[in-house]
Amino acid sequence: MDSAQPMTSLDSFFRPRSVAVIGASDEAARIGGRPLRYLRESGFRGAIYPVNPKRGEVQGLKAYASVHDLPEAPDIVLIAVPSAHVLDAVTACGERGATGAIIFSAGFAETGEEGAALQRKLVASARSHGMRLLGPNCLGSFNAEIGFYGTFSQILDARLPTAGATAIVSQSGAYGSHVAYLAGERGLGVRYFLTTGNEADVDVAEGLLWLAERPDVNVIMAYAEGIKRPDIFLEALSLARQNRKAVIFMKVGRSVVGAKAAESHTAALAGSDAVYDGVFRQYNVYRAHTTSEQIDVAYACARGVYPTHNRLGIFTLSGGFGIQMADAAADAGLDVAPMSSEAQAELKALLPYASPANPVDATAQALGDLTLMSRYLAVMLERGGYDAIVGIFGSSPASPTFSGSLRAALEAAVARFPDRLLILTISAPREIVRAYEEKGFLIFEDGHSAVNALAALVQIGAGFDVAQNEAPVVRGPAVNLSGRRLSESDAKRVLREAGIAFPREVLAKSPEAAAGAAREIGWPVALKIVSADIAHKTEIGGVLLNVGNEEDARAGAALILERTARARPDAVIDGILVSPMLKGGVEAIVGTSRDPVFGPVVMFGLGGIFVEALRDVVFRVAPFGKAEAHRMIAEIKGYRVLQGVRGMPPSDIDALADALVALSRFAAAHADDVLSVDLNPVLVRPRGEGALALDATIATAPQGSTP
Amino acid sequence: MDSAQPMTSLDSFFRPRSVAVIGASDEAARIGGRPLRYLRESGFRGAIYPVNPKRGEVQGLKAYASVHDLPEAPDIVLIAVPSAHVLDAVTACGERGATGAIIFSAGFAETGEEGAALQRKLVASARSHGMRLLGPNCLGSFNAEIGFYGTFSQILDARLPTAGATAIVSQSGAYGSHVAYLAGERGLGVRYFLTTGNEADVDVAEGLLWLAERPDVNVIMAYAEGIKRPDIFLEALSLARQNRKAVIFMKVGRSVVGAKAAESHTAALAGSDAVYDGVFRQYNVYRAHTTSEQIDVAYACARGVYPTHNRLGIFTLSGGFGIQMADAAADAGLDVAPMSSEAQAELKALLPYASPANPVDATAQALGDLTLMSRYLAVMLERGGYDAIVGIFGSSPASPTFSGSLRAALEAAVARFPDRLLILTISAPREIVRAYEEKGFLIFEDGHSAVNALAALVQIGAGFDVAQNEAPVVRGPAVNLSGRRLSESDAKRVLREAGIAFPREVLAKSPEAAAGAAREIGWPVALKIVSADIAHKTEIGGVLLNVGNEEDARAGAALILERTARARPDAVIDGILVSPMLKGGVEAIVGTSRDPVFGPVVMFGLGGIFVEALRDVVFRVAPFGKAEAHRMIAEIKGYRVLQGVRGMPPSDIDALADALVALSRFAAAHADDVLSVDLNPVLVRPRGEGALALDATIATAPQGSTP
Repeated sequence: MDSAQPMTSLDSFFRPRSVAVIGASDEAARIGGRPLRYLRESGFRGAIYPVNPKRGEVQGLKAYASVHDLPEAPDIVLIAVPSAHVLDAVTACGERGATGAIIFSAGFAETGEEGAALQRKLVASARSHGMRLLGPNCLGSFNAEIGFYGTFSQILDARLPTAGATAIVSQSGAYGSHVAYLAGERGLGVRYFLTTGNEADVDVAEGLLWLAERPDVNVIMAYAEGIKRPDIFLEALSLARQNRKAVIFMKVGRSVVGAKAAESHTAALAGSDAVYDGVFRQYNVYRAHTTSEQIDVAYACARGVYPTHNRLGIFTLSGGFGIQMADAAADAGLDVAPMSSEAQAELKALLPYASPANPVDATAQALGDLTLMSRYLAVMLERGGYDAIVGIFGSSPASPTFSGSLRAALEAAVARFPDRLLILTISAPREIVRAYEEKGFLIFEDGHSAVNALAALVQIGAGFDVAQNEAPVVRGPAVNLSGRRLSESDAKRVLREAGIAFPREVLAKSPEAAAGAAREIGWPVALKIVSADIAHKTEIGGVLLNVGNEEDARAGAALILERTARARPDAVIDGILVSPMLKGGVEAIVGTSRDPVFGPVVMFGLGGIFVEALRDVVFRVAPFGKAEAHRMIAEIKGYRVLQGVRGMPPSDIDALADALVALSRFAAAHADDVLSVDLNPVLVRPRGEGALALDATIATAPQGSTP
Repeated sequence: MDSAQPMTSLDSFFRPRSVAVIGASDEAARIGGRPLRYLRESGFRGAIYPVNPKRGEVQGLKAYASVHDLPEAPDIVLIAVPSAHVLDAVTACGERGATGAIIFSAGFAETGEEGAALQRKLVASARSHGMRLLGPNCLGSFNAEIGFYGTFSQILDARLPTAGATAIVSQSGAYGSHVAYLAGERGLGVRYFLTTGNEADVDVAEGLLWLAERPDVNVIMAYAEGIKRPDIFLEALSLARQNRKAVIFMKVGRSVVGAKAAESHTAALAGSDAVYDGVFRQYNVYRAHTTSEQIDVAYACARGVYPTHNRLGIFTLSGGFGIQMADAAADAGLDVAPMSSEAQAELKALLPYASPANPVDATAQALGDLTLMSRYLAVMLERGGYDAIVGIFGSSPASPTFSGSLRAALEAAVARFPDRLLILTISAPREIVRAYEEKGFLIFEDGHSAVNALAALVQIGAGFDVAQNEAPVVRGPAVNLSGRRLSESDAKRVLREAGIAFPREVLAKSPEAAAGAAREIGWPVALKIVSADIAHKTEIGGVLLNVGNEEDARAGAALILERTARARPDAVIDGILVSPMLKGGVEAIVGTSRDPVFGPVVMFGLGGIFVEALRDVVFRVAPFGKAEAHRMIAEIKGYRVLQGVRGMPPSDIDALADALVALSRFAAAHADDVLSVDLNPVLVRPRGEGALALDATIATAPQGSTP
């Protein structure tokens, strides 16, 4: 898409005052009939104009032979005709002055080059009239509050959604529809719904941007196979974070087969999945890995209460359930902190056989004496210091008679604490669950899902707060490096200027100078040939390590020069780099690369087999600030190594964070002219002693190239 | 429990011909009334004897004042009286000749030492009469086929179970009940149910053993906080594996807080959770981490079809769903292998725009033309080579009218392939789901759960086959090492005899001899002081590495002896161990320890930070064979390192497996006299060059101690 094209709001896809349907059908089960039926059933108050040259009336509404005949320019037109007729329809809509068109029809870019060419014509025609397009090959949009249903999704057959605080934006119509169905089953009100299909014009990023500004939305469930416009995407995510809207994302195409299928499904650039992981963390997007997780977390977020810490109180009537929940909470990173000994004593006094620490086990006795249960929960809330409590009830509330009195007892306990999250695990018929939900309880069937959702709330809530604390990052000016070949020594000089720390090194021009430099640096040293022409120094014998005295240094430097002259007589030699042999510290790998979607990204991992065997690396889009660098470092599985294990001292994580920030600024400043930077290894020394890059390479873009 | 006590079958808890209820109540909601109600409702054909001294009749049945008055010795007695009266009741049952008693009452070992003492008296009384006990503090047992309900579980209020091929054995009554409820909701027939509570006599292990022999059971769902009788437990698991019964286990107390809560909940020894993980893998037990996973896997296993390989065909009508499923399948370790190009061409001919590789996307067109769907699926089954296919249908089948024709189309496709697994993801009301299940389809709502369950089937099925291939392991005779202190040299000698490989080393008695030995071994060498009195050689300067020539070796050995004499004048010196300095290979840590539950276990992990930072270790109960050793090695996260990464050659994994097997036999043979063995590091050299232990320590039990 041409980014010079001025942005138009998506209002016509969500809040049209008038709707035309090209290909309108009397049969309510057909694609051209279904939206009409929904619009009528929902009581949509705007004008509805069926367009069908063969009929005077469709589903009881006056029909028009053409959009040209409509009494007004429609805000939105739904196009439900075979692909061969779509271009004419789009052109007619544009001519009639429609603001937007939703194209349900398939048979475009998803089918091959011919379809893609046809799709480009749709866009060109729409653009020439300033009209926006949704689709083609999409399932449209809806706004449940005003009863606008610009979709033929079958899930609306069962019931129309309620206009809650949830929104869905999905590239896949089938997926978006499915999630809307599941949300409805879970009692979540889906207010806005947008599916983008082939994304000829409007895409998921733009949908997110529109939704991020809506005051009546606090949860957005998203689905995409790839992102095409990273600037709009990141702007949308920033805005959502700033406006404290939870974005819960299903990004598919993680696996090799999945990514391959994604390519065959749409033309989206897939990007590296690890980069998406980094972007989501950087922008406080919760990445769901299963659909049920997406629904669970959305359900929890819809309540709008985010715990400020990760302390969880567990209330149970059965020790076994309590243990299981404590295990699950630990897996999810929650802190099952015990209550104060005074509070425990108070509970013990109420029931001598109870376990009052946490999990608090009031035993089955509390089922027989519900005042005991109320009292227990009240003590946990008053004196436990928990923002959230999970109460485990299993299938007991499934009994309709018992369920009511249990609910009353729980309400009595929590009435004074509206700011706390009370999560109950209950397996019971839906109407019983709804009765609890109406009283403000969050209900999960599975305890594991409950604590996962709670952990997600803690993470998302913390991310909202982070957004306000992080200082903005400014890109500085930079010399264009396009087309330059940089030796190790050049690369280190450039990066040192950018703020990366290196050991004190000397580029010696002769064996004698090398020996002198080594004496100053201190023994032992490493000697390396320096030439922009030689990428693999070791292979030609251009590196000597652990050189211990002046005589060896002089002879070694001569030997390296001799070997180089033999192996690469053509190479321009800058000299011999003399470096100290540093010991102690943890080896890290730090680098940048140019992601096909997000541009310059910074990678970090621990050196050696951690990266090779475990792919234990994290990414961030450049540039970023120091707090983000610290979060990035803490994300790797091997973080414990930096904290100090096996009697090793803690590493200088702060200096490592400085290096990441500096590199991210460098990468952002050189987004166009630098392809990649490798700092391998970076020696992260004990705390207070810094993080030094021992080697550096910079790959530059060819001169005159554009990214 | 006294293991000398002869075993009695658990038949009385599952197949009694007569049931007495002490504390029988007219109120069907009370603990003493509920089982009577269930027994009557279920049409139990045996005799039912309410015992209540205050009534002549209970719930319409003739009541007896005491068990002594019963017309026959009952097979089982349910005891539902306060804890203070339980001992009298148990004694009376024993005297009257009952075979077993189920004690619902709480107030025993779970409440403290006083209760534990009372519980011991129950056991003593029962034993003296040859009567078995279930509980106390338990929820009893049932057998749905004969309508025997020896339980007061509230879940039976809703409906009585159907007698399917599933069984539940659970230490926690509440958990067992909850799982039975969820199984019922999922349409799984629970035939046998046993909850063991405080496990004064009958425990989960024994319940498993009984169930493992039942021809009418093929899936056992189990729950335990800890195992007290490992021999019976492992016998039961072996038998279940041999009889091809899937055991799906929820073992709680994994986390620190969870384990602590487990201790407060029962008196069970928790054991190390990593050891439980090892035991489960060794005995082909599927360890569920969430309750919904436990139900999902049980549901899949109940079908009794285990795919022989992990190739999965994915059928979808929406590309997005297909990609998501491919991602989930990859996460679960399944192979989304493409169809042959011929088969793909056949599908392309049917529908040009489809994606025919795998995921096979027939697009929404197949919903409009169901014969197309049938044809597609048939081609996948005939020509895809898939044992299992997942078809993704989302909420489309929720429409009752469409659902029937879709079902017919699917049935038509699969009719000729009864041995294949056809899994459908469907979100629809229960009655619609049941209709599909009746036709043999497995139905999951969530795709992620579906592929996880399928991966579990592959794993469990492979485990059944493994059982038949692995040769039994025989423990050899062994010299008792109790009370002996073994120097490094002693330990290596003993272990070398047991089959562990070490480098060629020489124990030199003098500096001169050390120099001579080093010359023979080859330079450089390591020199180490050898004394059973000195555990930490390095601390006293008793180790020299990288000794490069004869002169240094002589002087170094003398220096070591001198340092040792100064630091530890009392120590008995065996000599100087001269070893080659080996390079190349991957360092592993191998060891044995004595688990409080399972006795001698073997641990394996990669050396260095892998173990420290990632706790990447696996366990097995000793002894085991080579195939098991290979599985063990492949389980660690860092396995890729042994396979060869970063240009390193593949390691000699086979030699490592030999070492593990040898060590496991040693550990088993020395179960009583060896506390632990540490081989750290074991250098796993490139393939064909062996795995050599570079250091060895053996900690022995004190003389005369019992394990």
